[in-house]
Amino acid sequence: MFSFKVDEELSIELFQQHHKEELFSFIDENRIHLRKWLSWVDKREKADDLDPVIRVWLQKYADNNGFDAGVRVNGQLVGMIGLHQIDWKNRTTSVGYLLGEEAQGKGVITRALSSLNDYLFDQMDLNRVEIQCAASNHKSMAVPERLGFMKEGMVRQGQWLYDHFEDIVTYSILKEEWLNRK
Amino acid sequence: MFSFKVDEELSIELFQQHHKEELFSFIDENRIHLRKWLSWVDKREKADDLDPVIRVWLQKYADNNGFDAGVRVNGQLVGMIGLHQIDWKNRTTSVGYLLGEEAQGKGVITRALSSLNDYLFDQMDLNRVEIQCAASNHKSMAVPERLGFMKEGMVRQGQWLYDHFEDIVTYSILKEEWLNRK
Amino acid sequence: MFSFKVDEELSIELFQQHHKEELFSFIDENRIHLRKWLSWVDKREKADDLDPVIRVWLQKYADNNGFDAGVRVNGQLVGMIGLHQIDWKNRTTSVGYLLGEEAQGKGVITRALSSLNDYLFDQMDLNRVEIQCAASNHKSMAVPERLGFMKEGMVRQGQWLYDHFEDIVTYSILKEEWLNRK
Amino acid sequence: MFSFKVDEELSIELFQQHHKEELFSFIDENRIHLRKWLSWVDKREKADDLDPVIRVWLQKYADNNGFDAGVRVNGQLVGMIGLHQIDWKNRTTSVGYLLGEEAQGKGVITRALSSLNDYLFDQMDLNRVEIQCAASNHKSMAVPERLGFMKEGMVRQGQWLYDHFEDIVTYSILKEEWLNRK
Amino acid sequence: MFSFKVDEELSIELFQQHHKEELFSFIDENRIHLRKWLSWVDKREKADDLDPVIRVWLQKYADNNGFDAGVRVNGQLVGMIGLHQIDWKNRTTSVGYLLGEEAQGKGVITRALSSLNDYLFDQMDLNRVEIQCAASNHKSMAVPERLGFMKEGMVRQGQWLYDHFEDIVTYSILKEEWLNRK
Amino acid sequence: MFSFKVDEELSIELFQQHHKEELFSFIDENRIHLRKWLSWVDKREKADDLDPVIRVWLQKYADNNGFDAGVRVNGQLVGMIGLHQIDWKNRTTSVGYLLGEEAQGKGVITRALSSLNDYLFDQMDLNRVEIQCAASNHKSMAVPERLGFMKEGMVRQGQWLYDHFEDIVTYSILKEEWLNRK
Repeated sequence: MFSFKVDEELSIELFQQHHKEELFSFIDENRIHLRKWLSWVDKREKADDLDPVIRVWLQKYADNNGFDAGVRVNGQLVGMIGLHQIDWKNRTTSVGYLLGEEAQGKGVITRALSSLNDYLFDQMDLNRVEIQCAASNHKSMAVPERLGFMKEGMVRQGQWLYDHFEDIVTYSILKEEWLNRK
Repeated sequence: MFSFKVDEELSIELFQQHHKEELFSFIDENRIHLRKWLSWVDKREKADDLDPVIRVWLQKYADNNGFDAGVRVNGQLVGMIGLHQIDWKNRTTSVGYLLGEEAQGKGVITRALSSLNDYLFDQMDLNRVEIQCAASNHKSMAVPERLGFMKEGMVRQGQWLYDHFEDIVTYSILKEEWLNRK
Repeated sequence: MFSFKVDEELSIELFQQHHKEELFSFIDENRIHLRKWLSWVDKREKADDLDPVIRVWLQKYADNNGFDAGVRVNGQLVGMIGLHQIDWKNRTTSVGYLLGEEAQGKGVITRALSSLNDYLFDQMDLNRVEIQCAASNHKSMAVPERLGFMKEGMVRQGQWLYDHFEDIVTYSILKEEWLNRK
Repeated sequence: MFSFKVDEELSIELFQQHHKEELFSFIDENRIHLRKWLSWVDKREKADDLDPVIRVWLQKYADNNGFDAGVRVNGQLVGMIGLHQIDWKNRTTSVGYLLGEEAQGKGVITRALSSLNDYLFDQMDLNRVEIQCAASNHKSMAVPERLGFMKEGMVRQGQWLYDHFEDIVTYSILKEEWLNRK
Repeated sequence: MFSFKVDEELSIELFQQHHKEELFSFIDENRIHLRKWLSWVDKREKADDLDPVIRVWLQKYADNNGFDAGVRVNGQLVGMIGLHQIDWKNRTTSVGYLLGEEAQGKGVITRALSSLNDYLFDQMDLNRVEIQCAASNHKSMAVPERLGFMKEGMVRQGQWLYDHFEDIVTYSILKEEWLNRK
Repeated sequence: MFSFKVDEELSIELFQQHHKEELFSFIDENRIHLRKWLSWVDKREKADDLDPVIRVWLQKYADNNGFDAGVRVNGQLVGMIGLHQIDWKNRTTSVGYLLGEEAQGKGVITRALSSLNDYLFDQMDLNRVEIQCAASNHKSMAVPERLGFMKEGMVRQGQWLYDHFEDIVTYSILKEEWLNRK
């Protein structure tokens, strides 16, 4: 119902309970693709499994601590983007995203994140936006690299994925960097 | 950050904590006008007084129980609209709204409510939308009347306002009526 | 354990956990009769199903937001009466009631409500008492009509009942009306 | 509003928020008398100080964990009686009471407790009722002694009162004893 | 991880979630022995059943309301000791303990309780330590008797155990008594 | 009351409410030294200001999400050490510490952290321990370096301190590295 407009084609819409069937279909169609990096995918076996998840997402938004939203191309759900949490004291946030297979290769996440950065730095006066990607997820890493984020470091064995630990790469961009870049 | 688009000019944006100064300015500029029907206006004496209010509004949204949003004309905050609560068992909701003095006379609320009705009946599958106005608030009553709501009844002495009770008029429109109307 | 005395024969007793078997028997004996207007009846299949219900009722009482009580004739449970909630700001409450089949036709609810009105207006200083009945439930509507409540309006399709919406009639009586009536 | 009837003259009424002025007057009139054994009396300096207290009492009642009620002679508040808590697993409760000065010497608490015992053993199926009195409070100890409670033991220095510890005497009566006594 | 040192051999260690397998083994090996006095033993049928129990214990500790800890001889878990709650207003606490069969006869609990008393009276400035034992549990009663606690009274039929009530004996020792004793 | 033993001289003791005066004295004596890196120091102006802080620390411990403890040399409080949180899914934790001025230069934190690492990897089966230091806090950085932690990256402008952002350096050591090191 409530969307953040990226451009004429692209928007980011907060998930609400009445999106659960649509969201489940998206996850289900991209299951093999998504589960590669996201262990929670296996646990969502029907639309109703998303009820408590959407509840948690909305609570985070109500707590002024981030959001979880759908990425839509001409209204169609093609991915997700959100803020994992907001550290207001240090004015830092961390962005996460995923994209369905069909929507890949069109800069969808890059465009969405670029607009989001504008809002986070201008309107919400954050100072730092962080992105963490699995070190072997090259498509995911391409997004911050394309937008001028700096590779800051590595969280060695930072994420448990099914049967092994993945190293996690941390990217960040500061407010001053984002403003100068444009 | 997240908006419901009404038309090229008009949008409805969820209030978040970082809107509190803007919202306070709007209330403060329209104080005399707004307090006539809204006793809570007097209690908001500075922007920070809106912190707990916005918190309650966002919690209602997270609880899937309505929302509170700003009405914006070309981005500028000119009023408020929201759902007081949603009775999911009986698929009913109740809409509330207010408008600053300068924006009056342009059908702003009527257009916003019309778009909102489309969404509430189509996407959220509600069956009934209700509006309650003070019986002496003719401008407010003009909105449901213009949109074909039916005057259903009177809540006699339904609202305490400063030093007296106001009678409240109830309007409603049903899904079938809204769809047939168009 | 704690009762509101109506007259020598009639009393209204707050439900507590140790009433659950007695209450279940009452519901079970009047199941066909009660389920006609009350969809929650079907969900109560054994005494233990009333544990969480009584918990919610007592919490409402503790929150100073109404009560749920048994109507007793010479100690025997024959019906229920309660306040759905209390709107202290506007000094309004809404009364609900039901009666087992055998106790019908003796003015039980009318007498109970009359005593209750005295208490609500005198001791609790409420200004307005409301009753909502399904528009086709003539026995229920007879109660407020007998006591001089005014028919204020209709909530069209206000209640979902199994497979259809029922219209709801709203009655009310104001403090001044109740006092003048006597 | 809701009372437990002791006899034609005496009743025990649950405290609700609208009793706070009446309760405060009672405490205030008996302040010197009551504070001798009850350190909380000093902290109640105006009727509004009772708001959170009554809230806690009602919550205890809603939790099926006891109650706090006024003792009334012909409707007039003359004292208090209640259950501090109920140990359902071991079917034990502990009774507390106090009486204003004017009502003393008429067996008010003894009669109230006797009726209460009937209810606690018969209707609530408790097995044991306990009373704890300061060892130097002879009037208070007379109540359980008159009703056949057994002196079970002493809690040495069990209660801090202003500037010293009081020894506490424990009395109890068992269900079988109460039933045989009559 | 965090222990209270009794002597070179004996320590008391707060239970945490990662102790659940060890604690379950201890309970399971002493099941017949422990269930004689503790009805909760039967309900713990596997290590995971201890998850919510340990959660409750830790919460009590966080609430400054007592603790539950393992008694260890040279690191090996041989029993449990804890404070059921702390009444800060009256500066009183109640100690509970149990011992596995193999560790009996070595004064383990007596030594642990003696050290604990030192801490409770010196560091936490409590005034009274209480112990309650089933009147037929002679081994348990030997502990307070050995340490100079006074037998204060009897809670007749104070505890329900499977199919009957047990009488409970109350022992206590006061700060002044403990300090003088040494 | 409950301590983790590091060596004959050094221990780590969980903070409880009755430590607040001692803890406040420590903070107050090291105020100038500590506030350099810790902005919360200024907010603690008397012992009672530590009540809610200790409450939060104990709650974290009860939630199995870390701990906050005093570092003691022969019983005397000289510093603090703790786990900021535990990410059980990825088996990672983050250690924080501070030391009073007088205790510096004796390897106190290094010894404490070394023992702690043994416990975290062996008993709690964590896989990764992380330390974050302000990039200009050379004394703090010396601790992980001495113990063989790897410098993984930089959180640029990661912490707001009074009037500027500090860069934060991240160190980590993995279970396999810790075990091989010895």
